Amino acid sequence: MLIIGEKINSSRKSIKEMVENKNTEFIRELARKQVECGAQMLDLNIGTIRKNEPENMQWLVRTVQEAVDVPLCIDSPNYEAIKAGLEVYNWDKGKALINSVTAERERLELILPLVKKYQCSVVALTMREEGISHDSKERFKIADELVKKLTDEGIFIEEIYIDPLTLPVSTNIQNANIVLETLKRVKDSYPQVKTIIGLSNISYGLPERRLLNQSFVVLAMVFGLDAVILDSTDKNLMALIKATDLLLGKDKFCKQYLKAFREGRL
Amino acid sequence: MLIIGEKINSSRKSIKEMVENKNTEFIRELARKQVECGAQMLDLNIGTIRKNEPENMQWLVRTVQEAVDVPLCIDSPNYEAIKAGLEVYNWDKGKALINSVTAERERLELILPLVKKYQCSVVALTMREEGISHDSKERFKIADELVKKLTDEGIFIEEIYIDPLTLPVSTNIQNANIVLETLKRVKDSYPQVKTIIGLSNISYGLPERRLLNQSFVVLAMVFGLDAVILDSTDKNLMALIKATDLLLGKDKFCKQYLKAFREGRL
Repeated sequence: MLIIGEKINSSRKSIKEMVENKNTEFIRELARKQVECGAQMLDLNIGTIRKNEPENMQWLVRTVQEAVDVPLCIDSPNYEAIKAGLEVYNWDKGKALINSVTAERERLELILPLVKKYQCSVVALTMREEGISHDSKERFKIADELVKKLTDEGIFIEEIYIDPLTLPVSTNIQNANIVLETLKRVKDSYPQVKTIIGLSNISYGLPERRLLNQSFVVLAMVFGLDAVILDSTDKNLMALIKATDLLLGKDKFCKQYLKAFREGRL
Repeated sequence: MLIIGEKINSSRKSIKEMVENKNTEFIRELARKQVECGAQMLDLNIGTIRKNEPENMQWLVRTVQEAVDVPLCIDSPNYEAIKAGLEVYNWDKGKALINSVTAERERLELILPLVKKYQCSVVALTMREEGISHDSKERFKIADELVKKLTDEGIFIEEIYIDPLTLPVSTNIQNANIVLETLKRVKDSYPQVKTIIGLSNISYGLPERRLLNQSFVVLAMVFGLDAVILDSTDKNLMALIKATDLLLGKDKFCKQYLKAFREGRL
Protein backbone atom coordinates (compact mmCIF):
# COMPACT_ATOMS: atom_id res chain seq x y z
CA MET A 1 0.00 0.00 0.00
CA LEU A 2 1.25 3.43 -0.95
CA ILE A 3 1.77 5.62 2.13
CA ILE A 4 1.26 9.33 1.46
CA GLY A 5 2.34 11.77 4.17
CA GLU A 6 -0.42 14.22 5.08
CA LYS A 7 1.40 16.78 7.18
CA ILE A 8 2.10 19.54 4.67
CA ASN A 9 -1.47 20.77 4.85
CA SER A 10 -2.36 24.38 5.54
CA SER A 11 -5.40 23.46 7.59
CA ARG A 12 -2.77 22.99 10.32
CA LYS A 13 -2.02 26.49 11.61
CA SER A 14 1.76 26.05 11.83
CA ILE A 15 1.93 24.96 8.19
CA LYS A 16 -0.16 27.92 7.08
CA GLU A 17 2.28 30.29 8.79
CA MET A 18 5.37 28.52 7.51
CA VAL A 19 4.13 28.60 3.91
CA GLU A 20 3.07 32.24 4.16
CA ASN A 21 6.50 33.10 5.57
CA LYS A 22 8.26 30.81 3.08
CA ASN A 23 10.13 29.02 5.83
CA THR A 24 12.19 26.69 3.64
CA GLU A 25 13.97 24.86 6.44
CA PHE A 26 10.77 24.08 8.35
CA ILE A 27 9.10 22.60 5.28
CA ARG A 28 12.17 20.63 4.28
CA GLU A 29 12.51 19.18 7.76
CA LEU A 30 8.85 18.18 7.81
CA ALA A 31 9.24 16.54 4.40
CA ARG A 32 12.33 14.62 5.54
CA LYS A 33 10.70 13.52 8.79
CA GLN A 34 7.67 12.09 7.01
CA VAL A 35 9.78 10.18 4.51
CA GLU A 36 12.10 8.85 7.25
CA CYS A 37 9.01 7.52 9.01
CA GLY A 38 7.87 5.63 5.93
CA ALA A 39 5.97 8.01 3.62
CA GLN A 40 6.54 6.97 0.00
CA MET A 41 4.86 10.12 -1.37
CA LEU A 42 3.99 13.49 0.19
CA ASP A 43 0.70 15.32 -0.11
CA LEU A 44 0.89 19.12 -0.59
CA ASN A 45 -2.34 20.86 0.31
CA ILE A 46 -2.50 24.62 0.84
CA GLY A 47 -6.13 25.05 -0.09
CA THR A 48 -6.90 27.08 3.04
CA ILE A 49 -4.43 29.81 2.01
CA ARG A 50 -6.55 31.63 -0.53
CA LYS A 51 -3.95 34.17 -1.58
CA ASN A 52 -1.32 33.30 -4.21
CA GLU A 53 -2.00 29.56 -4.17
CA PRO A 54 -0.25 28.93 -7.53
CA GLU A 55 2.93 30.75 -6.45
CA ASN A 56 2.86 29.10 -3.03
CA MET A 57 2.40 25.68 -4.61
CA GLN A 58 5.38 26.25 -6.89
CA TRP A 59 7.54 27.29 -3.95
CA LEU A 60 6.32 24.26 -1.98
CA VAL A 61 6.98 21.75 -4.80
CA ARG A 62 10.49 23.09 -5.29
CA THR A 63 11.26 23.24 -1.59
CA VAL A 64 10.03 19.72 -0.87
CA GLN A 65 11.70 18.17 -3.90
CA GLU A 66 15.03 19.70 -2.89
CA ALA A 67 14.74 17.86 0.41
CA VAL A 68 13.39 14.40 -0.43
CA ASP A 69 13.39 11.86 -3.25
CA VAL A 70 9.74 10.84 -3.30
CA PRO A 71 6.95 11.80 -5.70
CA LEU A 72 4.31 14.33 -4.67
CA CYS A 73 0.55 14.45 -4.52
CA ILE A 74 -0.50 17.92 -5.75
CA ASP A 75 -3.67 18.41 -3.77
CA SER A 76 -5.87 21.42 -4.50
CA PRO A 77 -9.39 22.41 -5.47
CA ASN A 78 -7.73 25.15 -7.55
CA TYR A 79 -6.85 24.24 -11.13
CA GLU A 80 -4.30 27.07 -11.38
CA ALA A 81 -2.43 25.81 -8.32
CA ILE A 82 -2.24 22.26 -9.69
CA LYS A 83 -1.08 23.56 -13.05
CA ALA A 84 1.57 25.78 -11.45
CA GLY A 85 2.82 22.95 -9.24
CA LEU A 86 3.21 20.59 -12.17
CA GLU A 87 5.13 23.22 -14.17
CA VAL A 88 8.01 23.18 -11.70
CA TYR A 89 7.76 19.51 -10.73
CA ASN A 90 10.99 17.49 -10.92
CA TRP A 91 9.97 14.33 -12.77
CA ASP A 92 13.18 12.52 -11.81
CA LYS A 93 11.61 12.09 -8.37
CA GLY A 94 8.79 9.94 -9.73
CA LYS A 95 5.36 10.47 -11.20
CA ALA A 96 3.12 13.13 -9.63
CA LEU A 97 -0.39 12.32 -8.41
CA ILE A 98 -2.97 15.00 -9.17
CA ASN A 99 -5.55 15.33 -6.41
CA SER A 100 -8.19 15.58 -7.80
CA VAL A 101 -10.83 15.38 -10.48
CA THR A 102 -14.53 14.95 -9.73
CA ALA A 103 -17.54 14.17 -11.89
CA GLU A 104 -18.16 17.93 -12.12
CA ARG A 105 -17.84 18.55 -15.84
CA GLU A 106 -16.00 21.84 -15.59
CA ARG A 107 -13.36 20.48 -13.25
CA LEU A 108 -12.89 17.36 -15.33
CA GLU A 109 -12.42 19.41 -18.49
CA LEU A 110 -9.77 21.56 -16.83
CA ILE A 111 -7.77 18.82 -15.13
CA LEU A 112 -7.86 16.15 -17.83
CA PRO A 113 -5.45 17.96 -20.21
CA LEU A 114 -2.93 18.21 -17.35
CA VAL A 115 -3.14 14.48 -16.63
CA LYS A 116 -2.60 13.78 -20.32
CA LYS A 117 0.18 16.32 -20.79
CA TYR A 118 2.24 15.08 -17.86
CA GLN A 119 1.13 11.43 -18.03
CA CYS A 120 0.69 11.42 -14.28
CA SER A 121 -1.68 9.62 -11.95
CA VAL A 122 -4.95 11.15 -10.83
CA VAL A 123 -7.31 10.93 -7.87
CA ALA A 124 -10.99 10.82 -8.85
CA LEU A 125 -13.46 11.80 -6.15
CA THR A 126 -16.87 10.14 -6.11
CA MET A 127 -18.84 13.39 -6.09
CA ARG A 128 -20.77 15.60 -8.49
CA GLU A 129 -21.96 19.20 -8.61
CA GLU A 130 -24.88 18.21 -6.37
CA GLY A 131 -22.61 17.09 -3.54
CA ILE A 132 -21.75 13.81 -1.85
CA SER A 133 -24.23 10.93 -1.77
CA HIS A 134 -24.84 8.88 1.39
CA ASP A 135 -25.33 5.76 -0.73
CA SER A 136 -22.37 3.59 -1.70
CA LYS A 137 -24.22 2.44 -4.83
CA GLU A 138 -24.42 6.05 -5.96
CA ARG A 139 -20.77 6.71 -5.09
CA PHE A 140 -19.80 3.63 -7.09
CA LYS A 141 -21.91 4.83 -10.01
CA ILE A 142 -19.87 8.04 -10.07
CA ALA A 143 -16.61 6.07 -9.81
CA ASP A 144 -17.81 3.92 -12.71
CA GLU A 145 -18.55 7.01 -14.83
CA LEU A 146 -15.20 8.57 -13.98
CA VAL A 147 -13.23 5.42 -14.81
CA LYS A 148 -15.03 5.19 -18.16
CA LYS A 149 -14.50 8.87 -19.00
CA LEU A 150 -10.84 8.85 -18.01
CA THR A 151 -9.97 5.65 -19.85
CA ASP A 152 -11.95 6.84 -22.89
CA GLU A 153 -9.62 9.84 -22.88
CA GLY A 154 -6.60 7.55 -22.95
CA ILE A 155 -5.65 7.59 -19.26
CA PHE A 156 -4.28 4.18 -18.23
CA ILE A 157 -6.63 2.45 -15.81
CA GLU A 158 -3.75 1.77 -13.36
CA GLU A 159 -3.18 5.54 -13.05
CA ILE A 160 -6.67 6.17 -11.66
CA TYR A 161 -7.08 6.37 -7.87
CA ILE A 162 -10.72 6.35 -6.80
CA ASP A 163 -11.35 8.21 -3.54
CA PRO A 164 -14.70 7.14 -2.04
CA LEU A 165 -14.64 10.26 0.20
CA THR A 166 -14.27 9.87 3.91
CA LEU A 167 -16.70 11.95 5.99
CA PRO A 168 -16.60 12.01 9.80
CA VAL A 169 -18.37 9.12 11.47
CA SER A 170 -19.45 11.62 14.14
CA THR A 171 -21.90 13.17 11.67
CA ASN A 172 -23.31 9.87 10.34
CA ILE A 173 -22.63 6.51 11.99
CA GLN A 174 -22.69 4.86 8.54
CA ASN A 175 -19.89 7.01 7.09
CA ALA A 176 -17.20 4.35 7.48
CA ASN A 177 -19.44 1.60 6.12
CA ILE A 178 -20.26 3.74 3.07
CA VAL A 179 -16.54 4.08 2.29
CA LEU A 180 -15.86 0.37 2.84
CA GLU A 181 -18.78 -0.66 0.62
CA THR A 182 -17.69 1.75 -2.10
CA LEU A 183 -14.12 0.40 -1.97
CA LYS A 184 -15.48 -3.13 -2.32
CA ARG A 185 -17.70 -2.22 -5.25
CA VAL A 186 -14.84 -0.46 -7.05
CA LYS A 187 -12.38 -3.33 -6.56
CA ASP A 188 -14.95 -5.99 -7.47
CA SER A 189 -15.72 -4.21 -10.74
CA TYR A 190 -12.27 -2.81 -11.56
CA PRO A 191 -9.45 -4.81 -9.96
CA GLN A 192 -6.89 -2.68 -11.85
CA VAL A 193 -8.23 0.66 -10.69
CA LYS A 194 -6.51 1.90 -7.55
CA THR A 195 -8.27 3.16 -4.44
CA ILE A 196 -7.22 5.89 -2.03
CA ILE A 197 -8.54 7.44 1.17
CA GLY A 198 -7.60 10.40 3.33
CA LEU A 199 -7.60 8.68 6.70
CA SER A 200 -7.97 11.18 9.47
CA ASN A 201 -11.22 12.79 8.40
CA ILE A 202 -13.10 9.72 9.66
CA SER A 203 -12.39 10.61 13.29
CA TYR A 204 -13.07 14.35 13.15
CA GLY A 205 -15.08 15.56 16.15
CA LEU A 206 -14.43 12.52 18.36
CA PRO A 207 -11.93 11.98 21.18
CA GLU A 208 -8.89 9.67 20.89
CA ARG A 209 -8.92 10.02 17.12
CA ARG A 210 -5.82 7.81 16.79
CA LEU A 211 -7.94 4.76 17.71
CA LEU A 212 -10.51 5.42 15.00
CA ASN A 213 -7.79 6.15 12.44
CA GLN A 214 -6.01 2.91 13.36
CA SER A 215 -9.14 0.83 13.08
CA PHE A 216 -10.27 2.51 9.86
CA VAL A 217 -7.06 1.85 7.96
CA VAL A 218 -7.19 -1.84 8.91
CA LEU A 219 -10.83 -2.03 7.81
CA ALA A 220 -10.05 -0.35 4.49
CA MET A 221 -7.11 -2.68 3.86
CA VAL A 222 -9.48 -5.66 3.95
CA PHE A 223 -11.11 -4.23 0.85
CA GLY A 224 -7.84 -3.82 -1.01
CA LEU A 225 -7.03 -0.17 -0.34
CA ASP A 226 -4.06 0.85 -2.56
CA ALA A 227 -3.07 4.22 -1.11
CA VAL A 228 -3.70 6.21 2.03
CA ILE A 229 -3.01 9.80 3.04
CA LEU A 230 -2.07 9.75 6.71
CA ASP A 231 0.35 10.91 9.38
CA SER A 232 3.38 8.73 8.66
CA THR A 233 5.07 10.02 11.81
CA ASP A 234 2.46 8.16 13.88
CA LYS A 235 4.52 5.11 14.78
CA ASN A 236 1.61 3.03 16.11
CA LEU A 237 -0.42 3.60 12.99
CA MET A 238 2.45 2.68 10.69
CA ALA A 239 3.23 -0.43 12.75
CA LEU A 240 -0.39 -1.54 12.63
CA ILE A 241 -0.36 -1.22 8.83
CA LYS A 242 2.70 -3.49 8.70
CA ALA A 243 0.96 -6.01 10.96
CA THR A 244 -2.11 -5.91 8.73
CA ASP A 245 -0.08 -6.41 5.55
CA LEU A 246 1.38 -9.48 7.20
CA LEU A 247 -1.99 -10.88 8.30
CA LEU A 248 -3.48 -10.32 4.85
CA GLY A 249 -0.74 -12.54 3.41
CA LYS A 250 1.11 -9.71 1.64
CA ASP A 251 4.39 -9.93 3.53
CA LYS A 252 6.18 -13.11 2.43
CA PHE A 253 8.16 -14.81 5.19
CA CYS A 254 7.11 -11.86 7.43
CA LYS A 255 10.14 -10.11 5.96
CA GLN A 256 8.95 -6.49 6.11
CA TYR A 257 7.46 -6.95 9.56
CA LEU A 258 10.66 -8.43 10.98
CA LYS A 259 12.74 -5.76 9.25
CA ALA A 260 10.59 -3.05 10.82
CA PHE A 261 10.99 -4.76 14.20
CA ARG A 262 14.78 -4.82 13.89
CA GLU A 263 14.76 -1.14 12.93
CA GLY A 264 12.70 -0.27 16.02
CA ARG A 265 9.65 0.74 13.98
CA LEU A 266 7.10 -1.56 15.62
CA MET B 1 -19.29 -8.74 20.41
CA LEU B 2 -18.89 -11.00 23.42
CA ILE B 3 -15.55 -10.43 25.15
CA ILE B 4 -14.19 -13.55 26.88
CA GLY B 5 -11.21 -13.11 29.20
CA GLU B 6 -8.37 -15.50 28.37
CA LYS B 7 -6.09 -15.16 31.36
CA ILE B 8 -7.09 -18.14 33.50
CA ASN B 9 -5.14 -20.52 31.30
CA SER B 10 -2.59 -22.95 32.69
CA SER B 11 -0.27 -22.55 29.71
CA ARG B 12 0.82 -19.45 31.64
CA LYS B 13 3.23 -20.67 34.28
CA SER B 14 1.89 -18.50 37.10
CA ILE B 15 -1.62 -19.79 36.57
CA LYS B 16 -0.44 -23.41 36.54
CA GLU B 17 1.22 -22.87 39.94
CA MET B 18 -1.72 -20.97 41.40
CA VAL B 19 -4.17 -23.70 40.38
CA GLU B 20 -1.90 -26.49 41.63
CA ASN B 21 -1.53 -24.67 44.93
CA LYS B 22 -5.24 -23.77 45.03
CA ASN B 23 -4.51 -20.08 45.56
CA THR B 24 -8.06 -18.87 45.87
CA GLU B 25 -7.25 -15.19 46.32
CA PHE B 26 -4.98 -15.01 43.26
CA ILE B 27 -7.58 -16.59 41.00
CA ARG B 28 -10.39 -14.43 42.35
CA GLU B 29 -8.34 -11.28 41.85
CA LEU B 30 -7.50 -12.28 38.26
CA ALA B 31 -11.17 -12.98 37.58
CA ARG B 32 -12.21 -9.62 39.03
CA LYS B 33 -9.53 -7.74 37.10
CA GLN B 34 -10.59 -9.21 33.77
CA VAL B 35 -14.25 -8.40 34.37
CA GLU B 36 -13.45 -4.87 35.54
CA CYS B 37 -11.56 -4.37 32.28
CA GLY B 38 -14.54 -5.43 30.18
CA ALA B 39 -14.66 -9.23 29.99
CA GLN B 40 -18.29 -10.38 29.78
CA MET B 41 -17.36 -14.05 30.20
CA LEU B 42 -14.22 -15.80 31.47
CA ASP B 43 -12.47 -18.73 29.84
CA LEU B 44 -11.16 -21.45 32.17
CA ASN B 45 -8.50 -23.62 30.58
CA ILE B 46 -6.26 -25.89 32.62
CA GLY B 47 -5.54 -28.41 29.89
CA THR B 48 -1.78 -28.31 30.49
CA ILE B 49 -2.20 -29.59 34.07
CA ARG B 50 -2.67 -33.27 33.37
CA LYS B 51 -3.26 -34.38 36.95
CA ASN B 52 -6.72 -34.09 38.50
CA GLU B 53 -8.19 -31.89 35.81
CA PRO B 54 -11.82 -32.61 36.80
CA GLU B 55 -11.18 -31.74 40.47
CA ASN B 56 -9.15 -28.66 39.52
CA MET B 57 -11.87 -27.51 37.14
CA GLN B 58 -14.49 -27.84 39.88
CA TRP B 59 -12.37 -25.82 42.27
CA LEU B 60 -11.78 -23.20 39.56
CA VAL B 61 -15.45 -22.86 38.59
CA ARG B 62 -16.45 -22.43 42.23
CA THR B 63 -13.61 -20.02 43.00
CA VAL B 64 -14.25 -17.80 39.99
CA GLN B 65 -18.02 -17.78 40.41
CA GLU B 66 -17.64 -16.68 44.02
CA ALA B 67 -15.71 -13.64 42.76
CA VAL B 68 -17.55 -12.44 39.67
CA ASP B 69 -21.03 -12.38 38.16
CA VAL B 70 -20.28 -13.40 34.57
CA PRO B 71 -20.83 -16.73 32.82
CA LEU B 72 -17.89 -19.06 32.15
CA CYS B 73 -16.41 -20.79 29.16
CA ILE B 74 -15.43 -24.30 30.28
CA ASP B 75 -12.49 -24.97 27.99
CA SER B 76 -10.91 -28.40 27.93
CA PRO B 77 -10.00 -31.26 25.63
CA ASN B 78 -11.01 -33.53 28.52
CA TYR B 79 -14.66 -34.60 28.68
CA GLU B 80 -14.43 -35.46 32.37
CA ALA B 81 -13.16 -31.96 33.20
CA ILE B 82 -16.00 -30.30 31.30
CA LYS B 83 -18.54 -32.58 32.95
CA ALA B 84 -17.11 -31.92 36.40
CA GLY B 85 -17.05 -28.15 35.83
CA LEU B 86 -20.69 -28.11 34.74
CA GLU B 87 -21.75 -30.14 37.79
CA VAL B 88 -20.77 -27.35 40.18
CA TYR B 89 -21.58 -24.44 37.84
CA ASN B 90 -23.80 -21.71 39.33
CA TRP B 91 -26.43 -21.14 36.63
CA ASP B 92 -27.60 -17.91 38.25
CA LYS B 93 -24.45 -16.34 36.76
CA GLY B 94 -25.63 -16.97 33.19
CA LYS B 95 -25.38 -19.78 30.67
CA ALA B 96 -22.08 -21.68 30.41
CA LEU B 97 -20.25 -22.04 27.10
CA ILE B 98 -18.71 -25.48 26.51
CA ASN B 99 -15.42 -25.28 24.65
CA SER B 100 -15.52 -27.46 22.61
CA VAL B 101 -16.89 -30.12 20.30
CA THR B 102 -15.20 -31.11 17.03
CA ALA B 103 -16.27 -33.26 14.11
CA GLU B 104 -14.50 -36.19 15.78
CA ARG B 105 -17.35 -38.61 16.33
CA GLU B 106 -16.25 -39.82 19.74
CA ARG B 107 -15.88 -36.32 21.14
CA LEU B 108 -19.19 -35.21 19.69
CA GLU B 109 -20.99 -38.21 21.22
CA LEU B 110 -19.53 -37.48 24.64
CA ILE B 111 -20.11 -33.71 24.73
CA LEU B 112 -23.53 -33.53 23.06
CA PRO B 113 -25.46 -35.02 26.02
CA LEU B 114 -23.88 -32.37 28.27
CA VAL B 115 -24.97 -29.55 25.96
CA LYS B 116 -28.49 -30.97 25.94
CA LYS B 117 -28.66 -31.66 29.66
CA TYR B 118 -27.53 -28.18 30.68
CA GLN B 119 -28.99 -26.34 27.67
CA CYS B 120 -25.80 -24.35 27.36
CA SER B 121 -23.92 -22.89 24.42
CA VAL B 122 -21.18 -24.79 22.65
CA VAL B 123 -18.06 -23.99 20.65
CA ALA B 124 -17.65 -26.20 17.56
CA LEU B 125 -14.11 -26.44 16.16
CA THR B 126 -13.69 -26.89 12.42
CA MET B 127 -11.46 -29.97 12.69
CA ARG B 128 -11.71 -33.74 12.35
CA GLU B 129 -9.70 -36.76 13.47
CA GLU B 130 -7.31 -36.14 10.55
CA GLY B 131 -6.35 -32.70 11.81
CA ILE B 132 -6.81 -29.12 10.63
CA SER B 133 -7.23 -28.29 6.94
CA HIS B 134 -5.40 -25.37 5.30
CA ASP B 135 -8.39 -24.75 3.07
CA SER B 136 -11.21 -22.47 4.21
CA LYS B 137 -13.67 -24.38 1.99
CA GLU B 138 -12.85 -27.56 3.89
CA ARG B 139 -13.10 -25.79 7.26
CA PHE B 140 -16.48 -24.44 6.24
CA LYS B 141 -17.57 -27.93 5.17
CA ILE B 142 -16.83 -29.17 8.68
CA ALA B 143 -18.66 -26.19 10.20
CA ASP B 144 -21.60 -26.98 7.96
CA GLU B 145 -21.67 -30.64 9.08
CA LEU B 146 -21.39 -29.62 12.73
CA VAL B 147 -24.21 -27.09 12.50
CA LYS B 148 -26.44 -29.70 10.86
CA LYS B 149 -25.59 -32.40 13.40
CA LEU B 150 -26.05 -30.12 16.39
CA THR B 151 -29.34 -28.64 15.21
CA ASP B 152 -30.59 -32.13 14.26
CA GLU B 153 -29.98 -33.05 17.89
CA GLY B 154 -32.14 -30.17 19.03
CA ILE B 155 -29.45 -27.61 19.88
CA PHE B 156 -30.68 -24.10 19.04
CA ILE B 157 -28.70 -22.62 16.17
CA GLU B 158 -28.02 -19.42 18.16
CA GLU B 159 -26.22 -21.50 20.80
CA ILE B 160 -23.58 -22.72 18.35
CA TYR B 161 -20.26 -20.84 18.19
CA ILE B 162 -18.15 -21.90 15.22
CA ASP B 163 -14.40 -21.54 15.84
CA PRO B 164 -12.52 -21.50 12.52
CA LEU B 165 -9.26 -22.27 14.40
CA THR B 166 -6.55 -19.67 14.56
CA LEU B 167 -3.05 -20.99 13.82
CA PRO B 168 0.05 -18.77 13.99
CA VAL B 169 0.67 -16.68 10.91
CA SER B 170 4.38 -17.32 11.52
CA THR B 171 3.94 -20.92 10.37
CA ASN B 172 1.82 -20.13 7.29
CA ILE B 173 1.37 -16.62 5.94
CA GLN B 174 -2.20 -17.54 4.87
CA ASN B 175 -3.35 -18.53 8.37
CA ALA B 176 -5.20 -15.25 9.03
CA ASN B 177 -6.81 -15.26 5.59
CA ILE B 178 -8.02 -18.83 6.10
CA VAL B 179 -9.77 -17.78 9.32
CA LEU B 180 -11.30 -14.67 7.73
CA GLU B 181 -12.57 -16.62 4.72
CA THR B 182 -14.03 -19.31 6.96
CA LEU B 183 -15.78 -16.66 9.08
CA LYS B 184 -17.24 -15.13 5.94
CA ARG B 185 -18.46 -18.48 4.61
CA VAL B 186 -20.08 -19.38 7.93
CA LYS B 187 -21.85 -16.02 8.29
CA ASP B 188 -22.96 -15.97 4.64
CA SER B 189 -24.54 -19.42 4.98
CA TYR B 190 -25.75 -19.24 8.58
CA PRO B 191 -26.34 -15.67 9.77
CA GLN B 192 -27.79 -17.01 13.04
CA VAL B 193 -24.81 -19.18 13.90
CA LYS B 194 -22.28 -17.41 16.09
CA THR B 195 -18.56 -17.25 15.43
CA ILE B 196 -15.68 -17.19 17.90
CA ILE B 197 -11.90 -16.98 17.77
CA GLY B 198 -9.09 -17.27 20.28
CA LEU B 199 -7.15 -14.17 19.35
CA SER B 200 -3.60 -14.41 20.55
CA ASN B 201 -2.59 -17.63 18.80
CA ILE B 202 -2.36 -15.70 15.52
CA SER B 203 0.78 -13.85 16.67
CA TYR B 204 2.63 -16.76 18.28
CA GLY B 205 6.34 -16.78 17.37
CA LEU B 206 6.49 -13.15 16.20
CA PRO B 207 7.69 -9.98 17.98
CA GLU B 208 5.33 -7.21 19.11
CA ARG B 209 2.44 -9.63 19.22
CA ARG B 210 0.05 -6.91 20.45
CA LEU B 211 0.12 -5.31 16.98
CA LEU B 212 -0.88 -8.52 15.23
CA ASN B 213 -3.57 -9.22 17.82
CA GLN B 214 -4.95 -5.70 17.41
CA SER B 215 -5.06 -5.92 13.65
CA PHE B 216 -6.51 -9.44 13.65
CA VAL B 217 -9.48 -8.60 15.86
CA VAL B 218 -10.38 -5.64 13.63
CA LEU B 219 -10.11 -7.84 10.53
CA ALA B 220 -12.30 -10.53 12.08
CA MET B 221 -14.92 -7.97 13.12
CA VAL B 222 -15.40 -7.03 9.47
CA PHE B 223 -16.70 -10.54 8.91
CA GLY B 224 -19.16 -10.39 11.78
CA LEU B 225 -17.19 -12.04 14.57
CA ASP B 226 -19.55 -12.66 17.53
CA ALA B 227 -17.16 -13.61 20.32
CA VAL B 228 -13.44 -13.42 21.02
CA ILE B 229 -11.21 -14.92 23.69
CA LEU B 230 -8.55 -12.32 24.51
CA ASP B 231 -6.68 -10.41 27.19
CA SER B 232 -9.34 -7.97 28.37
CA THR B 233 -6.75 -6.22 30.55
CA ASP B 234 -5.03 -4.98 27.36
CA LYS B 235 -6.42 -1.46 27.29
CA ASN B 236 -5.32 -0.64 23.74
CA LEU B 237 -6.88 -3.79 22.36
CA MET B 238 -10.17 -3.17 24.14
CA ALA B 239 -10.22 0.47 23.00
CA LEU B 240 -9.57 -0.54 19.41
CA ILE B 241 -12.53 -2.94 19.56
CA LYS B 242 -14.75 -0.07 20.73
CA ALA B 243 -13.48 2.13 17.88
CA THR B 244 -14.17 -0.67 15.41
CA ASP B 245 -17.70 -1.22 16.72
CA LEU B 246 -18.29 2.48 16.15
CA LEU B 247 -16.87 2.48 12.62
CA LEU B 248 -18.90 -0.59 11.67
CA GLY B 249 -22.05 1.33 12.60
CA LYS B 250 -22.84 -0.73 15.70
CA ASP B 251 -22.53 2.05 18.28
CA LYS B 252 -25.52 4.36 17.87
CA PHE B 253 -24.73 8.01 18.55
CA CYS B 254 -21.16 6.86 19.44
CA LYS B 255 -22.64 6.23 22.89
CA GLN B 256 -20.44 3.34 24.02
CA TYR B 257 -17.31 4.96 22.60
CA LEU B 258 -17.94 8.25 24.39
CA LYS B 259 -18.84 6.42 27.61
CA ALA B 260 -15.54 4.51 27.43
CA PHE B 261 -13.73 7.81 26.85
CA ARG B 262 -15.35 9.42 29.90
CA GLU B 263 -14.40 6.39 31.99
CA GLY B 264 -10.77 6.64 30.87
CA ARG B 265 -10.91 3.37 28.95
CA LEU B 266 -9.76 4.68 25.56
